[in-house]
Amino acid sequence: MKGCFITLEGVEGVGKSTNLAYVQARLEASGKTLVVTREPGGTAMAEEIRELLLRPRQESVSEMAELLLMFAGRAQHLHALIQPALDAGHWVLCDRFTDATYAYQGGGRGVPMDWIATLETMVQQQLRPDLTLLLDVPVEVGLARARQRGELDRFEAEQQRFFEDVRQVYLQRAQAEPERFAIIDATPALNAVQAQIDEALLMRLGVPKP
Amino acid sequence: MKGCFITLEGVEGVGKSTNLAYVQARLEASGKTLVVTREPGGTAMAEEIRELLLRPRQESVSEMAELLLMFAGRAQHLHALIQPALDAGHWVLCDRFTDATYAYQGGGRGVPMDWIATLETMVQQQLRPDLTLLLDVPVEVGLARARQRGELDRFEAEQQRFFEDVRQVYLQRAQAEPERFAIIDATPALNAVQAQIDEALLMRLGVPKP
Repeated sequence: MKGCFITLEGVEGVGKSTNLAYVQARLEASGKTLVVTREPGGTAMAEEIRELLLRPRQESVSEMAELLLMFAGRAQHLHALIQPALDAGHWVLCDRFTDATYAYQGGGRGVPMDWIATLETMVQQQLRPDLTLLLDVPVEVGLARARQRGELDRFEAEQQRFFEDVRQVYLQRAQAEPERFAIIDATPALNAVQAQIDEALLMRLGVPKP
Repeated sequence: MKGCFITLEGVEGVGKSTNLAYVQARLEASGKTLVVTREPGGTAMAEEIRELLLRPRQESVSEMAELLLMFAGRAQHLHALIQPALDAGHWVLCDRFTDATYAYQGGGRGVPMDWIATLETMVQQQLRPDLTLLLDVPVEVGLARARQRGELDRFEAEQQRFFEDVRQVYLQRAQAEPERFAIIDATPALNAVQAQIDEALLMRLGVPKP
């Protein structure tokens, strides 16, 4: 039987790392064979592409180059890690995926959404996540948390307006595909956030609560 | 006035480096302000993408990842070097361009030609070379020359069949767009090859002969 493909999405400072570890622990506790990975990245070559994308540089970077690098890494990640794992019946938990491209490159940078959709079809064919957990907080809350963590990378150094646009695209996509997305309100205390995650894993994928 | 965009194409061992230097010398002698560049590569970031593409690696590389990396580098090269140079009235001479993607990824690796055409339109919009010099020799001649030069990279280590397919796509494209392409028979002695180049530069772009 094919495994389940779960993605975790959200803007900076939303608690993605903490909650990724929580989802991982929940799935492993329920006996799933789990591959945990991230985008951009996930294989040696895709991580090199990630590094190339995120490093601050003097050269003005074209939005199209950024978009194509993102999907190049995704094609490699699917080819060398995600698809073989799913085919082998493993579950895959991925920190960001194509929804992030719609949100960051499309919403944030204004890359035409139809270019992203064309590349999504080219690279993924029919593959979509079985469940996408969207961690959502107001942008000012998320950015304040991200700044506390220390240095910002090239994406994180963008302005608040950028992150507002990113968040809106995430929310629009979640509203357009309610059967795939679960919106998790990440504003309250951690135990309240994780109770929502437990509920989503149970209702969508039958993962028993702790 | 916008400058002219000239590309040089051909399979391994066809004498591309020698003849690139010759074209450069001819154009400079005729008083053109010339930018000489190459693909994949051409800017610091695009050269990093080139290095990522050409390095031999353990990981099985997806054809789609390779194709998207090629066009990511091209998007950056156009954005940061080629288009600004042409807009400033300079001439641009580029060692390989999109015809090589059709030939190597399409003809050689079997990537669907319509995917390449979609990416070409996305990345280049209306931009096409004003003149493409296709250096052509039988594959066995080219490969023998390339092997004499020493170590082969990941592309050059492919089999003769691969290069036959690459050559055929180059020739088909040249036949389909005779107003853009000049096919240069690179089999004879260098002075006979360069006489053909002089003729093409004169007839297509009005560059006087030496």
